[in-house]
Amino acid sequence: MYKATVIVKRRKDILDPQGKAAEQGAKLLGFNNVSDTKIGKYIEFFVHSNDLTVVEKEIKEYAGKLLSNPIIEDFEFKYEKVDET
Amino acid sequence: MYKATVIVKRRKDILDPQGKAAEQGAKLLGFNNVSDTKIGKYIEFFVHSNDLTVVEKEIKEYAGKLLSNPIIEDFEFKYEKVDET
Repeated sequence: MYKATVIVKRRKDILDPQGKAAEQGAKLLGFNNVSDTKIGKYIEFFVHSNDLTVVEKEIKEYAGKLLSNPIIEDFEFKYEKVDET
Repeated sequence: MYKATVIVKRRKDILDPQGKAAEQGAKLLGFNNVSDTKIGKYIEFFVHSNDLTVVEKEIKEYAGKLLSNPIIEDFEFKYEKVDET
């Protein structure tokens, strides 16, 4: 079994309204030094297979088709072997 | 100036409906090896100060009050010095 971590980030130049909203809140709370907030996703899951080809294929397809929007986002991933519990 | 990265994760035992939804989609697409999907946030921003006490305080307060919900989420953070551009 493998544990996968996928990080999804908006492409540069794509507006990040959620980041903008958080930053407006920051200004209201008096944090004036904060800028360029980008809010992406940090996703963890298990892949129940020990065949590395299968594992990598499932991570890439899951990340590219369901966890990210390929039009506006990029993703990166890593995985590590973990013991079945 | 510092670049901060904050990772927000749901606490263990707190239901993750967004993760569950992604996983149902995975099953429809035929990825049957995926389980325990947890969807958190990966946030990047700049802090325009060179006073480390200020930088760390702003990151912690921004993360704890605006970027995460302390009732159901935990956050971790790191930061690195970057050149002013």
